[in-house]
Amino acid sequence: MEENLSVVLHGKDDMRLENKPISPPGPSDVLLQVHSVGICGSDIKYWTHGYCGRFVLESPMVMGHEGSGTVIQIGKNVKDLKIGDRVAIEPGIPCRECQLCKDGRYNICIDVKFCATPPVDGNLCRYYTHPADFCHKLPPNVSLEEGALIEPLSVAVYSCSRGNVGLGSNVLICGAGPVGLLVLLTAKAMGAATVAITDIDEHRLSIAKEKGADCVIMVEKTDNKQLAERTVDIMGCSPDVVFECSGSDDSLCMGIYACKSGGCVVLIGRGSLEPTIPLVNAAVREIDIKGIFRYANCYAKAISMVSSGALEVSSLISHRFDLTKSLDAFTTANDRNSKAIKVIINCDK
Amino acid sequence: MEENLSVVLHGKDDMRLENKPISPPGPSDVLLQVHSVGICGSDIKYWTHGYCGRFVLESPMVMGHEGSGTVIQIGKNVKDLKIGDRVAIEPGIPCRECQLCKDGRYNICIDVKFCATPPVDGNLCRYYTHPADFCHKLPPNVSLEEGALIEPLSVAVYSCSRGNVGLGSNVLICGAGPVGLLVLLTAKAMGAATVAITDIDEHRLSIAKEKGADCVIMVEKTDNKQLAERTVDIMGCSPDVVFECSGSDDSLCMGIYACKSGGCVVLIGRGSLEPTIPLVNAAVREIDIKGIFRYANCYAKAISMVSSGALEVSSLISHRFDLTKSLDAFTTANDRNSKAIKVIINCDK
Amino acid sequence: MEENLSVVLHGKDDMRLENKPISPPGPSDVLLQVHSVGICGSDIKYWTHGYCGRFVLESPMVMGHEGSGTVIQIGKNVKDLKIGDRVAIEPGIPCRECQLCKDGRYNICIDVKFCATPPVDGNLCRYYTHPADFCHKLPPNVSLEEGALIEPLSVAVYSCSRGNVGLGSNVLICGAGPVGLLVLLTAKAMGAATVAITDIDEHRLSIAKEKGADCVIMVEKTDNKQLAERTVDIMGCSPDVVFECSGSDDSLCMGIYACKSGGCVVLIGRGSLEPTIPLVNAAVREIDIKGIFRYANCYAKAISMVSSGALEVSSLISHRFDLTKSLDAFTTANDRNSKAIKVIINCDK
Amino acid sequence: MEENLSVVLHGKDDMRLENKPISPPGPSDVLLQVHSVGICGSDIKYWTHGYCGRFVLESPMVMGHEGSGTVIQIGKNVKDLKIGDRVAIEPGIPCRECQLCKDGRYNICIDVKFCATPPVDGNLCRYYTHPADFCHKLPPNVSLEEGALIEPLSVAVYSCSRGNVGLGSNVLICGAGPVGLLVLLTAKAMGAATVAITDIDEHRLSIAKEKGADCVIMVEKTDNKQLAERTVDIMGCSPDVVFECSGSDDSLCMGIYACKSGGCVVLIGRGSLEPTIPLVNAAVREIDIKGIFRYANCYAKAISMVSSGALEVSSLISHRFDLTKSLDAFTTANDRNSKAIKVIINCDK
Repeated sequence: MEENLSVVLHGKDDMRLENKPISPPGPSDVLLQVHSVGICGSDIKYWTHGYCGRFVLESPMVMGHEGSGTVIQIGKNVKDLKIGDRVAIEPGIPCRECQLCKDGRYNICIDVKFCATPPVDGNLCRYYTHPADFCHKLPPNVSLEEGALIEPLSVAVYSCSRGNVGLGSNVLICGAGPVGLLVLLTAKAMGAATVAITDIDEHRLSIAKEKGADCVIMVEKTDNKQLAERTVDIMGCSPDVVFECSGSDDSLCMGIYACKSGGCVVLIGRGSLEPTIPLVNAAVREIDIKGIFRYANCYAKAISMVSSGALEVSSLISHRFDLTKSLDAFTTANDRNSKAIKVIINCDK
Repeated sequence: MEENLSVVLHGKDDMRLENKPISPPGPSDVLLQVHSVGICGSDIKYWTHGYCGRFVLESPMVMGHEGSGTVIQIGKNVKDLKIGDRVAIEPGIPCRECQLCKDGRYNICIDVKFCATPPVDGNLCRYYTHPADFCHKLPPNVSLEEGALIEPLSVAVYSCSRGNVGLGSNVLICGAGPVGLLVLLTAKAMGAATVAITDIDEHRLSIAKEKGADCVIMVEKTDNKQLAERTVDIMGCSPDVVFECSGSDDSLCMGIYACKSGGCVVLIGRGSLEPTIPLVNAAVREIDIKGIFRYANCYAKAISMVSSGALEVSSLISHRFDLTKSLDAFTTANDRNSKAIKVIINCDK
Repeated sequence: MEENLSVVLHGKDDMRLENKPISPPGPSDVLLQVHSVGICGSDIKYWTHGYCGRFVLESPMVMGHEGSGTVIQIGKNVKDLKIGDRVAIEPGIPCRECQLCKDGRYNICIDVKFCATPPVDGNLCRYYTHPADFCHKLPPNVSLEEGALIEPLSVAVYSCSRGNVGLGSNVLICGAGPVGLLVLLTAKAMGAATVAITDIDEHRLSIAKEKGADCVIMVEKTDNKQLAERTVDIMGCSPDVVFECSGSDDSLCMGIYACKSGGCVVLIGRGSLEPTIPLVNAAVREIDIKGIFRYANCYAKAISMVSSGALEVSSLISHRFDLTKSLDAFTTANDRNSKAIKVIINCDK
Repeated sequence: MEENLSVVLHGKDDMRLENKPISPPGPSDVLLQVHSVGICGSDIKYWTHGYCGRFVLESPMVMGHEGSGTVIQIGKNVKDLKIGDRVAIEPGIPCRECQLCKDGRYNICIDVKFCATPPVDGNLCRYYTHPADFCHKLPPNVSLEEGALIEPLSVAVYSCSRGNVGLGSNVLICGAGPVGLLVLLTAKAMGAATVAITDIDEHRLSIAKEKGADCVIMVEKTDNKQLAERTVDIMGCSPDVVFECSGSDDSLCMGIYACKSGGCVVLIGRGSLEPTIPLVNAAVREIDIKGIFRYANCYAKAISMVSSGALEVSSLISHRFDLTKSLDAFTTANDRNSKAIKVIINCDK
């Protein structure tokens, strides 16, 4: 346990493998031997740009926020976990004291500390300390690799909840990347009747088809309103809810036009900071526009669905790398030609 | 089309096959050739007792409210259906004018007219007229027999909605009769993680197991609190929501004890008019107690789920009879030894 | 009763007083002697432009949708009203058959017929026929002039409900016109703790102050973010909900910046069809953007609040005209210098 | 500051004034000089019976949970309070780690520590230490005596929220004691149109009338159904929501009969552990039965409403005593002839 190999981002395009000290667990923490960590779009953004959204890297930071591991030491107040337990790590620790935390919306707590969001260190390392109540025990039939996927799956679960997906919902997903695919699986598991998904990449659409999409729609450069009409035609109905996962402003506009009166559009991807959108169309048809920021109270639900078999997520892992090959992992995740969906780094020696 | 053979209840234990005039469709109605009609517990109750709950038979009434059929004539204002369309018949027609109707809670409209609830005639006959907007078109891959099952399925869909079943919910169902089984299927389709079901009949529990129940629990005469503890032990958790489908006051009390703080108990079955229940236990743990009365806005959702394949209901049909053998159908449905689940009467010549 | 003087719009800037035939009431209708009709921004828009939003005048249309009157004849099925009853007229008649109607969202029914929205005639006339269930009886202590104000008040009630205003809410209203003032009164009546209101007009702000606004904010041309900061400073908190009633895109942007994380912005005014807005700011702070289209299920609530004295609205009437002077009434309502708030036309002989 | 005079309950009928050590504030705590503490029914129950509900006194406990005070020392992590701040003390400290806490329902956290609920000491003493984030700062225009009333007011605010009170609601309150009166004030502040209140005590009803009840109803021993009909007659409508604050099973049954279809009954008072209630009547009319346990996220709202003047609560204080006369205070609060509404103990030297 003496060495704690860690993937540290020092600046744009400057990611290094280093030994870092192990943080001793406080009374309510556990020390984990990290097992698997997934790479997400925001990780790539920090690596290639040095920032992501409003968050800017200002000092070296350990990467990784989609992690899982095994408990190897527990703080004295920890009651619900014991040594040897396998857990998924929920990476955001809120203040627990503000009004939003007390209201159950801890994801938008202004003082939340989130792994690998500057300046907070992440868990792409050998050993990692985290509050016990944000380490969610995995049942025996959920693997530690699946445990690492609980993080992006929680984004999908939260988004579907914000979008009021329920039995018989008709759903349109713009963007068939990892998050879009997870929204597809989750929406189906919540009882969506029809799920359509769009992308500009044939390969991604073919995977979406395999994963159960009822319609896959290749997006060509065209008028957003016409594309909306074509989408509604293909679906056979207007969607009750649209999930924008592509980060394209055009997709957002198309989604508004396509959406059913009284429905909603959920923004998961991030396009322009200040896009121009058909807002009056949305307003007079009472289509609510809702963003999401990470998730709250979703880990337990996501784990239970993987355990029950209702959500099969491990097949989304397209590539695996050892911690010592993390740079290759990032390169692969960042390479469109790699056909990567989810890249996982194994941190276990 | 000249004769309209109908099953008419004249009084307790006095059900007759008769020819009745065909009601000509009004401008917003359709005339249907009835195909399939299911038998429900309330039908049996009217037949064997002459009343059901607060509703008393006072003059001859055509039976049947779980029906499907084919459109053979349309009123002049009907736009959304055409001759030849196959439909599931939503049997309750609300006033459309009261506050509850305008609020979307038309099932509890005080002036609702409901098939085979005295004095309103039902659809257990050859030809039947109904408002077009309460006839829900079946997609090609949903059979007319399945169409007849949409009625009890809507009870399940509505109940799950009232009980806030969602992704990761843990559910306890008391009573493995047709409604309990449909709640099981529906809860699973909405993303329930664990569904446990209780009954006093081994055969029913074995069917529940086949249909996907995670735990089946044989109820023996015992203390309700102890049974609740045993149920929680078997489930591995306290249920977030309990559906009482058995009509037993003991089950209701057990369900309250078993339910998680902050959860709810949904009453589908009807036990004593004025039961004695552990209400303070429910109150201090904020377990909401909610009844349901039929359903509102559930037919389209139920049909879409049968069509998508997420809900397989036709295997619940245990017996089929011709309209001319309706008395045998009722006798079978009323005979515990028949191991009947759902009995369907075919009304097509 | 032989003559039915009516205000008929024939085209842009072409409004005429004409006698029109009286529509005989159908079985579920009542015939009303119209008493008071308010003028709204949309009426002005039709008069001065020949269209409003997507609705275009294509043939002569009777104006007026904010009306009240007295029942003088009833259809044979009408049970809840009798001759002599004084009523507020809810001007939108939905189809009562589509999914949105059955779900309680009849305001966005695609087939709704709304008074003085082309091609449907309004009630700015002597005698007017309307479905009885959309005529809401006024209690003795609510005047017919107040009855005419129930329409814009319902917009406010509906908006506050969409915005989840409740006890202790902090509210920002952009625009102190009639709708903004009614939102102010309604928000206070629903328990809002602090209500701030903005405008570019000192007179309007002074009225808002009189009507109970906790802060009034004069908007000067400036950066939206800075104005948002100033607004939050003046309020002493970020608003939980922002109501955009000004039709200014700048106000909308300012409102998003000012709004509390987890709150919402409700669009009542209509600015550009396709504005450019700080959507990522809204999304990452989970500020929901919701439009409203008229209202549903608000008349009874609005009337009860005027009756209870919790909402004092009649003082918003700044000008009164006789039906024969309707052109003057419109001219006054359209003249900023008139300092008009609400202009009412009396239709009684 | 050396002595900390405290009111300590040693057992049934054995309450003593004693000096207790002052707990030093931890890093997130504040030390308060207590100012005012109200007496509640549960305090009386502990004093006269040695238990209240399932909670049993097993060792000496400082009384008091409706308290306010002034900050005289702060822990090193405390940022939102400073010495000299006047605060209302929210008496329940949840675990902050369980699913219910994270979901915003911290009041039903199983590990909540609540002042003067055995074995946790309360704040009826000179000096008291409490987590800073559960000490809510009072604005200058809210007195420390009003601060003590925020606790029972929060019960009312929470109950009205559970009961979905909103603009135009018609409300029935059973029981005109302190909680019933606070529910009355709160419901009015949230926009209730009509509030009726029942009691068996003329004096209480006369106070309710003064406080704004639209109807006051003297309950005489009679059939619950008949009383329900009389209540509906007097109100002029069926209530949308019934608050049972009397602890009488008869009131609860009456409330169910009186309630409108689709409404709800909120249990605040506690009657029999296992009452016999007309549950089928409630179920078929979809009247939800909901208990409440204390409150969550209500202090800030309650304080803001007292500050805005929308809720005038200080006139409910009928008696005031010095800390050294606490036994007299309890005796008065427990004496029906005293006509006490709210008894406040002043703890300041």
